[in-house]
Amino acid sequence: MRYENVKGTRDFLPKEMEKRQYILDVVRETFEEFGFVEIDTPSLEKWEVLSKKDAGGEGILEETYKFEDKSKDLIGLRYDLTVPLARFVAMNKKLPLPFKRYQIGKVWRYGDVSKGRLREFLQADIDIVGAESILADAEVLACASFALKKLKIDFLIRINSRKVLNSIMKKVGIKNEFVNDVLRSIDKLDKISENEVKKELFSKGFSKDVVEKIFEMIRSNSEELNVDGMEELNKLSEYLKLFDIRNFKIDFSLARGLDYYTGPIFEIVSKNKNIGSIAGGGRYDNLIELFSSEKIPATGISLGIERIFEILSDYPKKKRIFVALASEDVFEDAIKIVKMLREKFYVDYDLKGRKLSKQMEYANAKKFSIVIIVGKKDLENNKITIRDMESGEEKKINIKDLESFLENLKV
Amino acid sequence: MRYENVKGTRDFLPKEMEKRQYILDVVRETFEEFGFVEIDTPSLEKWEVLSKKDAGGEGILEETYKFEDKSKDLIGLRYDLTVPLARFVAMNKKLPLPFKRYQIGKVWRYGDVSKGRLREFLQADIDIVGAESILADAEVLACASFALKKLKIDFLIRINSRKVLNSIMKKVGIKNEFVNDVLRSIDKLDKISENEVKKELFSKGFSKDVVEKIFEMIRSNSEELNVDGMEELNKLSEYLKLFDIRNFKIDFSLARGLDYYTGPIFEIVSKNKNIGSIAGGGRYDNLIELFSSEKIPATGISLGIERIFEILSDYPKKKRIFVALASEDVFEDAIKIVKMLREKFYVDYDLKGRKLSKQMEYANAKKFSIVIIVGKKDLENNKITIRDMESGEEKKINIKDLESFLENLKV
Repeated sequence: MRYENVKGTRDFLPKEMEKRQYILDVVRETFEEFGFVEIDTPSLEKWEVLSKKDAGGEGILEETYKFEDKSKDLIGLRYDLTVPLARFVAMNKKLPLPFKRYQIGKVWRYGDVSKGRLREFLQADIDIVGAESILADAEVLACASFALKKLKIDFLIRINSRKVLNSIMKKVGIKNEFVNDVLRSIDKLDKISENEVKKELFSKGFSKDVVEKIFEMIRSNSEELNVDGMEELNKLSEYLKLFDIRNFKIDFSLARGLDYYTGPIFEIVSKNKNIGSIAGGGRYDNLIELFSSEKIPATGISLGIERIFEILSDYPKKKRIFVALASEDVFEDAIKIVKMLREKFYVDYDLKGRKLSKQMEYANAKKFSIVIIVGKKDLENNKITIRDMESGEEKKINIKDLESFLENLKV
Repeated sequence: MRYENVKGTRDFLPKEMEKRQYILDVVRETFEEFGFVEIDTPSLEKWEVLSKKDAGGEGILEETYKFEDKSKDLIGLRYDLTVPLARFVAMNKKLPLPFKRYQIGKVWRYGDVSKGRLREFLQADIDIVGAESILADAEVLACASFALKKLKIDFLIRINSRKVLNSIMKKVGIKNEFVNDVLRSIDKLDKISENEVKKELFSKGFSKDVVEKIFEMIRSNSEELNVDGMEELNKLSEYLKLFDIRNFKIDFSLARGLDYYTGPIFEIVSKNKNIGSIAGGGRYDNLIELFSSEKIPATGISLGIERIFEILSDYPKKKRIFVALASEDVFEDAIKIVKMLREKFYVDYDLKGRKLSKQMEYANAKKFSIVIIVGKKDLENNKITIRDMESGEEKKINIKDLESFLENLKV
């Protein structure tokens, strides 16, 4: 019998995890530099939280894992980190506001696997709760930008506003209750073609005339349309420049799929690889109110770690050392060297009592950077042999000089 | 309406996350020093993997979250990181062995909430796959010990062997097929009293005579019992001493609840706080074979991060800086200072256009270590005011000296 992963999920090998961990370290450090603090919420949320009207919305609930636990409570796996944050804020009313939090964690969506989308993936979110100023929107965008810059990713920020979109919808005569439905279709523009989106809108019952008018307007990006929300977008542009960010453009065709957005919305795309957005977010001034009695404005952005992982080709690799035993009788001395080196380095040794040649094969297959060979005769002279696995060069050095020798190698 | 967490799950506040992150950083660094490399596997596993006969066993399956996804596939949330590792190894046959991997992730068990046990909790596991030598068992124990030592936790390692327990069971006449059932009861010894365990065994149909004999033997810890597995335990003791580990004891009453163990088993308990084990594991030489056609020996240990979190009282706190604006007209200058400082420090500033007094209240409530006050007049002389929030001391310094001043404060 062959065993497999659950469809839409995957394992990550050590080489991949080294890269992922590098991304997370950079992202986490940047979040902290921008004054965000970390929280964690459970993967499991009550269904009544996830399905709250006007939270994520119908579109996302269709993709949400939902089940009864053993006491018949209806629960689900979170589909994002924003709705749980809203619940968290409602349950922690004494938090001094603004509350700038980050959270890094898995989310689950039962999406279309055929398009290479994972059903379990990692998000890194920053949100600012309790600040109505557009400065807060600029702050989350600046923070996300700096993280991506540190990762040397070439990107473009697309910004729009739900107010602009609502205003366009009003102008073409779409009733309030159908607006989200239209936006969910428009949101698919970076996954399917414009014609396919139009077809979807026709099939939802919107007329050719209305649909064409919508596309004319969202493709114009023009201030002359005289829509609401432009003032906000201009303010956001101003603040972004203050943070030295110039790689952004206003794009009326950006919609974002979740129902809870109320103001500016944004998305970050890679300039080099066409793999959808690598970050997305926006302002959601009404979401927290759904869980709390108070109206608390909020804005945030979510970095898609899996997507960033796909784009990133270069990252610093860790130097690892393998201590090889030339013969069994040096075992205790080798362990002493291993213990000493582990205070500063990443060190492994033979656990199987293999011959030296087999140990070298293993060290090679495992891509250790350096092998230290411990031999009986060398030990008598307080020496060991160091082999650089990349160059193949070997060198005998005194044991007492080993640490400083390796430290210099590190640079 | 009041919203709540799913029963048995909890949120972690920023202060708690700073502590958790510190623990994870130390643990991760130690794992790497010992030559372990990281993998990740999905939270979701196929039910046929989790429920594989002789894997975790019946006891754990009763506590496992199980549900159908939208395509009616039966899946579950992993209850540990070991069974997924066995599947991973079976699916990656080209891995050079021994494979020393670590994994840090959430696991889910529908356990008894009344005893303060969480249903979603974080484990950090190290395992060595493909090494039959007891040296590998010593290696995982040494690694776990070093991580706990770095965290300044006072602990004791209890070691036993399934071979010892099986031998005892044989001596008192327990049939093979009932052994795991007996061990699952004995495993409860650190959660319920000896009398309650005995009662449970009576109710399972074992006679008073047999149960008393079992307890006599598991309480003896004596080599004179002449049971199998003692040679292994002595070898393990020897290796542990080689790694400078002396805080361990052989304890025949240690059973471990999972079915898959075959050799040495171990558990680490806190000396100061009675909160159950903070780490546990053992050798499982038959588990991987269940998923693969090959027999591949393995051993490992799992650190319970939530338990370590409970024990740890002291950890290094991060210094955070708040930049306060004395008046609105210094906004652009303040942003310049924020941008500069963020290259090295954790920096926040006012997002709400509040008065200075309100900003100071906020900085105080949020426990910032340092506040930098940017004022119009000071700026004219290229100065800013620095306030140490712990001592209350204030000092005016030149802006160009700001960075080096803060760096010295850090030490």
